[in-house]
Amino acid sequence: MKPTPKSRRKAAPLLAFGAHPDDIEFGCGGVVACETRAGRVAHFVVCSRGEAATHGTAAQRVAEAKQSAALLGATVEFVELDGDALLEAKVAHTIKLASILRRVRPGIVLAPSLVADQHPDHARLGQLVRDAARLARYGGLKELRSLPPHAIDQLFFYAVTPEGEPPDITPVLIDISATEIVAAWTAAMDAHASQARSRNYAALQLARARLWGLRAGVGHAMALYPNDPLVLDSLAQAGRGARRF
Amino acid sequence: MKPTPKSRRKAAPLLAFGAHPDDIEFGCGGVVACETRAGRVAHFVVCSRGEAATHGTAAQRVAEAKQSAALLGATVEFVELDGDALLEAKVAHTIKLASILRRVRPGIVLAPSLVADQHPDHARLGQLVRDAARLARYGGLKELRSLPPHAIDQLFFYAVTPEGEPPDITPVLIDISATEIVAAWTAAMDAHASQARSRNYAALQLARARLWGLRAGVGHAMALYPNDPLVLDSLAQAGRGARRF
Amino acid sequence: MKPTPKSRRKAAPLLAFGAHPDDIEFGCGGVVACETRAGRVAHFVVCSRGEAATHGTAAQRVAEAKQSAALLGATVEFVELDGDALLEAKVAHTIKLASILRRVRPGIVLAPSLVADQHPDHARLGQLVRDAARLARYGGLKELRSLPPHAIDQLFFYAVTPEGEPPDITPVLIDISATEIVAAWTAAMDAHASQARSRNYAALQLARARLWGLRAGVGHAMALYPNDPLVLDSLAQAGRGARRF
Amino acid sequence: MKPTPKSRRKAAPLLAFGAHPDDIEFGCGGVVACETRAGRVAHFVVCSRGEAATHGTAAQRVAEAKQSAALLGATVEFVELDGDALLEAKVAHTIKLASILRRVRPGIVLAPSLVADQHPDHARLGQLVRDAARLARYGGLKELRSLPPHAIDQLFFYAVTPEGEPPDITPVLIDISATEIVAAWTAAMDAHASQARSRNYAALQLARARLWGLRAGVGHAMALYPNDPLVLDSLAQAGRGARRF
Amino acid sequence: MKPTPKSRRKAAPLLAFGAHPDDIEFGCGGVVACETRAGRVAHFVVCSRGEAATHGTAAQRVAEAKQSAALLGATVEFVELDGDALLEAKVAHTIKLASILRRVRPGIVLAPSLVADQHPDHARLGQLVRDAARLARYGGLKELRSLPPHAIDQLFFYAVTPEGEPPDITPVLIDISATEIVAAWTAAMDAHASQARSRNYAALQLARARLWGLRAGVGHAMALYPNDPLVLDSLAQAGRGARRF
Amino acid sequence: MKPTPKSRRKAAPLLAFGAHPDDIEFGCGGVVACETRAGRVAHFVVCSRGEAATHGTAAQRVAEAKQSAALLGATVEFVELDGDALLEAKVAHTIKLASILRRVRPGIVLAPSLVADQHPDHARLGQLVRDAARLARYGGLKELRSLPPHAIDQLFFYAVTPEGEPPDITPVLIDISATEIVAAWTAAMDAHASQARSRNYAALQLARARLWGLRAGVGHAMALYPNDPLVLDSLAQAGRGARRF
Repeated sequence: MKPTPKSRRKAAPLLAFGAHPDDIEFGCGGVVACETRAGRVAHFVVCSRGEAATHGTAAQRVAEAKQSAALLGATVEFVELDGDALLEAKVAHTIKLASILRRVRPGIVLAPSLVADQHPDHARLGQLVRDAARLARYGGLKELRSLPPHAIDQLFFYAVTPEGEPPDITPVLIDISATEIVAAWTAAMDAHASQARSRNYAALQLARARLWGLRAGVGHAMALYPNDPLVLDSLAQAGRGARRF
Repeated sequence: MKPTPKSRRKAAPLLAFGAHPDDIEFGCGGVVACETRAGRVAHFVVCSRGEAATHGTAAQRVAEAKQSAALLGATVEFVELDGDALLEAKVAHTIKLASILRRVRPGIVLAPSLVADQHPDHARLGQLVRDAARLARYGGLKELRSLPPHAIDQLFFYAVTPEGEPPDITPVLIDISATEIVAAWTAAMDAHASQARSRNYAALQLARARLWGLRAGVGHAMALYPNDPLVLDSLAQAGRGARRF
Repeated sequence: MKPTPKSRRKAAPLLAFGAHPDDIEFGCGGVVACETRAGRVAHFVVCSRGEAATHGTAAQRVAEAKQSAALLGATVEFVELDGDALLEAKVAHTIKLASILRRVRPGIVLAPSLVADQHPDHARLGQLVRDAARLARYGGLKELRSLPPHAIDQLFFYAVTPEGEPPDITPVLIDISATEIVAAWTAAMDAHASQARSRNYAALQLARARLWGLRAGVGHAMALYPNDPLVLDSLAQAGRGARRF
Repeated sequence: MKPTPKSRRKAAPLLAFGAHPDDIEFGCGGVVACETRAGRVAHFVVCSRGEAATHGTAAQRVAEAKQSAALLGATVEFVELDGDALLEAKVAHTIKLASILRRVRPGIVLAPSLVADQHPDHARLGQLVRDAARLARYGGLKELRSLPPHAIDQLFFYAVTPEGEPPDITPVLIDISATEIVAAWTAAMDAHASQARSRNYAALQLARARLWGLRAGVGHAMALYPNDPLVLDSLAQAGRGARRF
Repeated sequence: MKPTPKSRRKAAPLLAFGAHPDDIEFGCGGVVACETRAGRVAHFVVCSRGEAATHGTAAQRVAEAKQSAALLGATVEFVELDGDALLEAKVAHTIKLASILRRVRPGIVLAPSLVADQHPDHARLGQLVRDAARLARYGGLKELRSLPPHAIDQLFFYAVTPEGEPPDITPVLIDISATEIVAAWTAAMDAHASQARSRNYAALQLARARLWGLRAGVGHAMALYPNDPLVLDSLAQAGRGARRF
Repeated sequence: MKPTPKSRRKAAPLLAFGAHPDDIEFGCGGVVACETRAGRVAHFVVCSRGEAATHGTAAQRVAEAKQSAALLGATVEFVELDGDALLEAKVAHTIKLASILRRVRPGIVLAPSLVADQHPDHARLGQLVRDAARLARYGGLKELRSLPPHAIDQLFFYAVTPEGEPPDITPVLIDISATEIVAAWTAAMDAHASQARSRNYAALQLARARLWGLRAGVGHAMALYPNDPLVLDSLAQAGRGARRF
């Protein structure tokens, strides 16, 4: 039996972008764990080696990111843009990211939110990814001609910290309550050992997921913010609402 | 084989509330047609007989509403609150609507948006329905004791006209492009013949659905606004994004 | 030495309003514990006996509220408006609450947020309190003439759950990290034993306070939303910003 | 007696950034006068010499800025970025401003609002300062290694004109009513004599401060917009609300 | 020559609603002066006699309102709803106001903004007027049958104080700079002598109009907030933009 | 008879900027047709040759744009910035656009909305035009000295697709219902034949204009979003409101 177009779309890989080696894990690691458990291929693109951080060398952080991605069932690559804490919104970067999109050909893309939070690189990368998702589909761009155009299914934003949660987009909540999911996610966050020295980021993220979970009537949940309205064939797809309390 | 809880939930009826005999049809008729085609039971609760309209008697409008509901595959009942154009946000009304919720026991509820539009009754009824959805689940309310508590799965708002579209809720777009759906919906709108005399409401709604459809990359679509974030088990449920152009 | 006007103002009591016996504790209990520890008098006004809840009788809930208030160092009184889950925005209620304001003569008033959350009574009571704070200062209102007018210093809103957090008001974060404060607050929440049967409300609130705390660089914090901009004599009063991560 | 950490923090200098020689004075001069009167050290960083203005040469404007800063009790330095009306959001600028932050080591930082107003440089500089305040605290940035990291207490935005007032941040209002404060501020604005030729900017600012003052129940007030929620130890710090009328 | 429909519409009276005897004057008096100077008929409907104010008896305030309206070239009538500070959003009030709309048959209607400010009556009256403007045009409302339906051209909101300025509506600014307009408006505000005892409301309003004027590049201006987008035949009607500074 | 200042202002040309050869036509072509019919001179500045599009060569698209402009009664020029899909927000571009503004000396300027939509170039160009409108009026900018300063009357944004409609600006609706206007606009859109292959953009725009028209009570209308509040001499200029349904 040949795969139908629909089932092929579901099988399209998930592609997540992070500005620093731990952003994806902290911001949406539980969702990635969920998706890889369900059989979806996941790939991470990390856009610096975290070399501006107070703790941890670039080499340490790259190693941590590789270990962490593996714990989530994902592969990872590093792309050099301007360097940690030095990211600028250049079209040359957009082109570079668009060519990755054409190579990986994902269904779903995850990127940091466009809302400025504690690190300037986050929102700037989100903007670059959003632009890249557009350029990837234009047939006439000579800078991208070596690979065929590609249109993704949906771009979701994640927020590395609560400050980055977009106030004007209604999130979708992904139920990540299964014990093995929370465990895999926690392990992936803990793999970034160099960053745990000064602050308890993992505790922040678990409290956040617990809070979303309690609101959704489940154990833990993570919020993703769609760049565009969801298009559904029927309300049967729409799950249920989060107002449990 | 016994139905699982999940499949039972999907089978739960859809319950739509309208302030006037034609509000449901104009605001979300295409979605209802979609759902009843897919086998879901749909029931309408109309909260006035439209007696304040410039055209059409109450009797005519009730007859039109019955015919229209039938064309959409739905049943309809009328409930008296304060009368057309006279609706007030009284708790006694909330109790009345909550008891209907306990009787019908729907999964999905559709109600007019909370954003004020051209008719004061619309947003006011939306508020009453939202409150009723809460009261329906409280076990201790003696006014509702004759029926067991009921928790709905999700409340979606529809906008009777574009003015009522909530600017701060990301909609979900339901693809209503199938020829028979658009035809059933158009027929249902046309059934309200008394209202077609002065204004072309149906043309407005079809232009709106065409515009949403073009944005979603399909023929026609309608927007619904969830009261609470959607809770999904996986991104595979999330459909695709609307950014087609 | 006679007290200066300023120190007298600081000594003015805190008055907190709740729609149900546990709202104040869940929504701002940690702040109340903070203030009473620092010597401020605190008084609660609870506007129903929680008789519509799925669990707990009115008598039980009143007893729990009394015990809980005592654990926070506050006194409590009950006022009958329309009954649990039946609250309407009547001016007669505003007058009743305004006369309490004139009697207690607080500096700071705490009320549930105006943003609708899971219970219709919450936002409605917030509205009544805001109106009452205005009426309390009008000299000519004959309904209130038995007590002299009173102007409060500031009205802060609290959110019983995250859904009620106003997106358009910048909160102030109160550091409630001291061990004895968190303990007193937890005990006060636990005193509402009848409500703990079906849901872990206290866990929700502690996760929320932990999350605000992590954002503020402290152990636990609670957010209050001022009704009006703060007026300060100097930036030395402005504390520090919350961007710790 | 050794100074406590708290009093030392209060003594930390105020650092204000302006895109043009008169922006600080027009946008927050009254607050600076307040703080220097209270003994706080204040320093201005002006990021162009105003050479694109219709009136006044660069040399005149630098001289006016020095005189004006002196009238407010502040010191001033000039930093060259891209030149008046030509400012771009380059990371190299962020690094330059971050190194100033590490040198001056302020508690409070004032910067133009991120909301675009009549001059493109204003919001762009605000963005650069916000980013700089982050980079100043990262230990690993080799571009900044010559000076130890520094974390500020709070970043406040000021609006050069009403168009720049952020609609989504609740301001704090600083009471600047004292006669000598208003006089010092007015003198500082008048010191920019070259800019008074075509428009009465000082009249605009005084009307604005009068309006905020009337709203706050005092003579004159200025609004500052915190980048992050205020963290307070107690509600006693929260001053009073502005709803005087 | 018979008047064309267009010129007749321009001649349609202006109808302004106020909750208290001085609201219209303080909130939009300058605009009324402008319009009556230009030959338009203006009529005020005042919905209480201001009897809850700290200063001034009902009789005094009615007399002041009559004098003030005359100074602006307007007529005035009083309508009893619930009394000062006691206004509720009842449909019976909407009907009463709608019947006034049918009697006066205005082109332009002015009403207090829907944004809550320092007095609960203001926004509530704004809501009643907006609803009334709808009901006035419905042909079937038996409560209004004694007068023929009437559709107004536009509803504008005014803000009694800056707190009531709607943040989500772009205002139109009316140039009221002419000396005789400002003088007439000031005299009309001063006519409310009983309210001048405790606070300088007129100074607040003049500072506000001066600030809007400076933004608009004129002496004084007042902001009105349209309920619906303006429909223009050509951009020649669109005047000019306010960004003068 | 000498022209009065007012009539001279009305005669000032309209200048519209587009990022790609068809943006102006799709986003505001009907308004341009309206204005040129009324005798106003219109000029288009197109900032790329659309060479990144999936269909159509640069040469084809330039030819289409020229034909289309002619159908709308406008002239057109092309300016090279960074190329299609590669636009960056550089001050050098702002200078280039500002010098065009000084040369053409328009009254009204039309530019794409600042709200990001499906193409990154759109909002970026809008930003450049807004900045350019400011720089054009500064007397001291040596980069622009060859032409005298120029202040425009108003900047209006248009949205190429509904996604770009600014949610926080109240639009003005221009009635474009006249048969010849709709015909000219449709012909101008159809002139971009190369873009019609894959998507029915013209159908999208006509549905949009029909929807705005139905809301405004006319056949077709287009929405423009003013950068600054409109300044009017009288309410007689304010047209009528759009709430027809």
